[in-house]
Amino acid sequence: MEETFVPLRGIKNDLKGRLVCYKQDWTSGIQAGIRILAPTTYIFFASAIPVISFGEQLERNTDGTLTAVQTLASTALCGIVHSILGGQPLLILGVAEPTVLMYTFLYDFAKERKDLGHKLFLPWTGWVCVWTAVLLFLLAVLGACSIINRFTRLAGELFGLLIAMLFMQQAIRGLVEEFGVPQSQREGTNQIALQSSWLFANGMFALVLSFGLLFTALRSRTARSWRYGAGWLRGFIADYGVPLMILVWTAVSYIPTNKVPRGIPRRLFSPNPWSPGAYSNWTVIKEMLNVPLIYIIGAFIPATMIAVLYYFDHSVASQLAQQKEFNLRKPSSYHYDLLLLGFLTILCGLIGIPPSNGVIPQSPMHTKSLATLKHQLLRNKLVSAARKSMQKNMNLCQLYQSMQEAYNQMQTPLARQIPPSLGLKEMKESTIQLASSHGYIDSPVDEVVFDVDKDVDDLLPVEVKEQRLSNLLQSLMVAACVAAMPLLKKIPTSVLWGYFAFMAIESLPGNQFWERILYLFTAPSRRYKVLEKHHAAFIEIVPFKTVAMFTLFQSAYLLLCFGLTWIPIAGVLFPLLIMLLIPVRQYFLPNFFKGAHLQELDAAAYEDAPAISFNLSFDNSGSQTSTVNNSGEILDDIITRSPGEISLNMKSKSSTAASFGDTDPAYGNISKDLQPSSNTIERGKQPMINHDHERDQVQEKY
Amino acid sequence: MEETFVPLRGIKNDLKGRLVCYKQDWTSGIQAGIRILAPTTYIFFASAIPVISFGEQLERNTDGTLTAVQTLASTALCGIVHSILGGQPLLILGVAEPTVLMYTFLYDFAKERKDLGHKLFLPWTGWVCVWTAVLLFLLAVLGACSIINRFTRLAGELFGLLIAMLFMQQAIRGLVEEFGVPQSQREGTNQIALQSSWLFANGMFALVLSFGLLFTALRSRTARSWRYGAGWLRGFIADYGVPLMILVWTAVSYIPTNKVPRGIPRRLFSPNPWSPGAYSNWTVIKEMLNVPLIYIIGAFIPATMIAVLYYFDHSVASQLAQQKEFNLRKPSSYHYDLLLLGFLTILCGLIGIPPSNGVIPQSPMHTKSLATLKHQLLRNKLVSAARKSMQKNMNLCQLYQSMQEAYNQMQTPLARQIPPSLGLKEMKESTIQLASSHGYIDSPVDEVVFDVDKDVDDLLPVEVKEQRLSNLLQSLMVAACVAAMPLLKKIPTSVLWGYFAFMAIESLPGNQFWERILYLFTAPSRRYKVLEKHHAAFIEIVPFKTVAMFTLFQSAYLLLCFGLTWIPIAGVLFPLLIMLLIPVRQYFLPNFFKGAHLQELDAAAYEDAPAISFNLSFDNSGSQTSTVNNSGEILDDIITRSPGEISLNMKSKSSTAASFGDTDPAYGNISKDLQPSSNTIERGKQPMINHDHERDQVQEKY
Repeated sequence: MEETFVPLRGIKNDLKGRLVCYKQDWTSGIQAGIRILAPTTYIFFASAIPVISFGEQLERNTDGTLTAVQTLASTALCGIVHSILGGQPLLILGVAEPTVLMYTFLYDFAKERKDLGHKLFLPWTGWVCVWTAVLLFLLAVLGACSIINRFTRLAGELFGLLIAMLFMQQAIRGLVEEFGVPQSQREGTNQIALQSSWLFANGMFALVLSFGLLFTALRSRTARSWRYGAGWLRGFIADYGVPLMILVWTAVSYIPTNKVPRGIPRRLFSPNPWSPGAYSNWTVIKEMLNVPLIYIIGAFIPATMIAVLYYFDHSVASQLAQQKEFNLRKPSSYHYDLLLLGFLTILCGLIGIPPSNGVIPQSPMHTKSLATLKHQLLRNKLVSAARKSMQKNMNLCQLYQSMQEAYNQMQTPLARQIPPSLGLKEMKESTIQLASSHGYIDSPVDEVVFDVDKDVDDLLPVEVKEQRLSNLLQSLMVAACVAAMPLLKKIPTSVLWGYFAFMAIESLPGNQFWERILYLFTAPSRRYKVLEKHHAAFIEIVPFKTVAMFTLFQSAYLLLCFGLTWIPIAGVLFPLLIMLLIPVRQYFLPNFFKGAHLQELDAAAYEDAPAISFNLSFDNSGSQTSTVNNSGEILDDIITRSPGEISLNMKSKSSTAASFGDTDPAYGNISKDLQPSSNTIERGKQPMINHDHERDQVQEKY
Repeated sequence: MEETFVPLRGIKNDLKGRLVCYKQDWTSGIQAGIRILAPTTYIFFASAIPVISFGEQLERNTDGTLTAVQTLASTALCGIVHSILGGQPLLILGVAEPTVLMYTFLYDFAKERKDLGHKLFLPWTGWVCVWTAVLLFLLAVLGACSIINRFTRLAGELFGLLIAMLFMQQAIRGLVEEFGVPQSQREGTNQIALQSSWLFANGMFALVLSFGLLFTALRSRTARSWRYGAGWLRGFIADYGVPLMILVWTAVSYIPTNKVPRGIPRRLFSPNPWSPGAYSNWTVIKEMLNVPLIYIIGAFIPATMIAVLYYFDHSVASQLAQQKEFNLRKPSSYHYDLLLLGFLTILCGLIGIPPSNGVIPQSPMHTKSLATLKHQLLRNKLVSAARKSMQKNMNLCQLYQSMQEAYNQMQTPLARQIPPSLGLKEMKESTIQLASSHGYIDSPVDEVVFDVDKDVDDLLPVEVKEQRLSNLLQSLMVAACVAAMPLLKKIPTSVLWGYFAFMAIESLPGNQFWERILYLFTAPSRRYKVLEKHHAAFIEIVPFKTVAMFTLFQSAYLLLCFGLTWIPIAGVLFPLLIMLLIPVRQYFLPNFFKGAHLQELDAAAYEDAPAISFNLSFDNSGSQTSTVNNSGEILDDIITRSPGEISLNMKSKSSTAASFGDTDPAYGNISKDLQPSSNTIERGKQPMINHDHERDQVQEKY
């Protein structure tokens, strides 16, 4: 992406890029058929459950002014609008924890003022939203998002781990609270349930339910590689295991119903949307003019904080959903999405609901689940093509020919013009070489030479089913939640805490920062095990001591950020501390680490391919679809990973920095000089020599 | 073992065989040094915890006449005597569940009779023990144990799985009872703890503690293969993880002490041995003559049942502790051990404590933990030898020479006369072949050619540290338990249930019956995964349908046995049903399955090497120490397995039935005809063609 600050240029580019593929965004989603429901429900739960929990938190903090109904409504509304009108449909919107903290702060401020008070709180937040939106418009128009390129792996992964820590903290805090008296004494709280014996029983029950959910949900995600059970069952469990486990553990929570008083275990709490007073706040807009002028102007101060927060969160969530490893084919849309977020913020403010923004880890989870989907669809097609060829007694070349055709048919209409995926091509060559060396190149292919089930998995590159349908459907499901509130309220809160822990753990693998932390704890005699598995290139190139230094620095910074979130109000501004990493990375770190090492540890992995136009980006796609020669389960493994690079199993050191060789003339020279004979392409490892200056020069060419 | 019924011959042979190695039994144990404590504590917990739990059960059932003090005393006493005077020191003795059931039945009978009653119950059981001992003497003298050879894998593994089911049943029953009112209202039972809220809380707490123990204990057993932590820490956790986890979870159970009333969670219950009345029963012998004559004679009836039970349990436990896969070098001692058991039974009867017998799964667990120990000792020695050689720039041949010397030094003095272990020899040859083909046969060895840490693991055969010290020490520790009762009583009962489940699960892997059940549930498309890993030969040779049929028959039989244990008194006699498997296997099954298939599925894996004399058995040791070409962790994997064959990773089908080729002329002809070119030796798979008749002929030669 160009680092330009010419007004509106970023928005224009985004719109141009996304409009080209807008129609295909829908047709592709519809073509996926019923299977689209797997990523949809997966992401729906990841989206809805935290939002409900945040709504409950907000209800306690605002004396019931805002509840889960409002947070769900905001998530649904923003999600639907974004999935239809938004730029990057992989981005998931929702009401996030920082928003909740901010609104809590606003409420605490408002209720103390005589001329605002409980009554004018929502109209006042309406003004805060208006100002926030104005600032977001400014940022979008002026191209502020183009500096997203400066966010390297260092910052992105630190942020990802911080979010995981916050989720885990919420899980632990929630579990501890299950042992205590509930914070808000709701209507109809059962006094028997508040006896110390029942409090203890409730806490223990909560431990059972949350750990039960956590373990079974984690297990279900790897179902595809289980040895037992029919394939469709394993697939079903892997796709729908998490919602299924929420159902199962909710059912388990009803087993001792006869033995326990009402209120054990504690369950989700929210008013039904049709309860009286639940939507008294939908007409906030009428009261906005009643807010005293001084507060209308004063609203600008919290608005700046929210704007900074949203600018950062929204962009980074979008960036993490579009990591290089996913081999996305459609362009990004940072500026336009920020503009749209401004409109959504105003909309939410005017109807008195807290606004949504792009959320982590849901957005990268969304992309990953779509990569699984795409993999399955491609796999089915290729397997049937291969089977057909073998029945016709074709030889290996013909087999690949027919598989290539099937593969091409699966490509998007726009993509079909481009040369066939490098992945399929490379694999084909190596297999044919192997076969000819054994002398059966011309004989009909049988299961020995080509094991359909296994070899097809090896052929497939990581690709993502990029479309708008899953996002729209999950938003609609969130909207349905508002109506299904009586059902949702059956879920025990402890299951929810288990789910928080699940989300935190799910977001860890694939995060190189996390993997480096683990690497530090790996016994020296066992490091060869890391090398035997898929691993990032830095493990072979960078000395252990440097890795340790870098990781310790990053960990200290992480703890600093985590500590900041504990400070009551300043805590909302932890993104500022993470943005501070840009200059730290640019000017401070190079004094302590060698350039080549920094490049390995912190290549700007989240850099986007030049977003000049949709067509142009496809010219480069030969290098974009890098091969990941993994079996299906390894893909599963990759797919269940989070931010970070999909590391390849490369023993040779010559395969790390070659991706630009084909695409970027300026880098091409550099990397070819360094690696004259490398032919393995890994997109996530673009060289970052003289990181900041050279890149600026290169980018000026576009 | 000879199938002879000449009086006393079996006992004489046993004594002859064991006396030769008696001194070495002690020196070898002492040479192992401090490391002997790892298997000792491991087996001590496996032995003591069920005995305490059975003692508690017995206390409830006999109105406090017998308690955990008596069961522990019996286990300690019999263990000490057996470890010093017994034949096979790998066999672990203890008070087992069937004994508890039998004593419960005897008590129920006695307390109803006016002329026996509560008072004369123990003297009467003294007479039962006397009669039992007489019967055991008869069985031992007449050589009844020699038919142990007829027990094939079919019966042994079925029995193993049945025991696992009974342990698991006890775990589940125990956990369910934690939710209810305790069965025996003990002195000082806290009435608050009996409120329904605290009962529920207690149950939930029990779930947390028992599942906590189960998961962490299972995890700790695989610690050696963890990636994280220093080597010594991983080793320590693998060795002492289970006792450690019992400590940890007992500590956890004290965390909420301030919140809960006394009695939550429930803890082990037993009188202290120094409490008044705790050993009123140690003088039973004086009262034995007060028992009416009719009951003295009548005691013969329960005695026959107990004798059958002990004969079976004791022999099968001994058999499972001496499976072929362990490559034991010292002879078995079935007859003499049964004779000794008779003496021990009288001794226990006369002092009024329930007698002990050989227990499953503790006995095979004991052997396995000693195999791990031996592996570690050998490994340390060989690694240091290899390192030294490499420092001296030796070539590969010299390296193996020096390792061979080190290996020989580690052999028992008696064993040194025999040719070097085939394992080391074979591996050496293949590595040297590889090295010479690469042309560096004469150059000094470096880490590339010979990776010390990994390759040494590959070299080592499975060997067991056969000695008496671990058995003696664990028996002494059990004796110390009687004194340490106040400490033991701090363990929550729920931790105990978790431990029962742990023992059940630990006994499953390696049991081919269990693995066949899993195999039936393996999706057809995933069966290749079974082949990729270590697996038994039948998977490649026997058609799936036959495997399924055989397994279903065995499962039905297992359920029948399990059902029988539910019938109040007859349940004690389930061993009879298992003994019925001998004729079933011999006359019934061959009508339904092909001989070759039966041989694969049910080779008489528990058959012992001819126990003619200690020296003679070493002449065969070339074939007894079969190579298991696995890395250290795979050995770990094997070691943590239970009854059943250590299956090798063999893709070639020609490697299954060759072991007799070198050792047994009669079989040699058969197996050489079948497999002229096979050279991989697998001891657990001796061919059983025409299973019963041919073997009898062969054995007559000895």
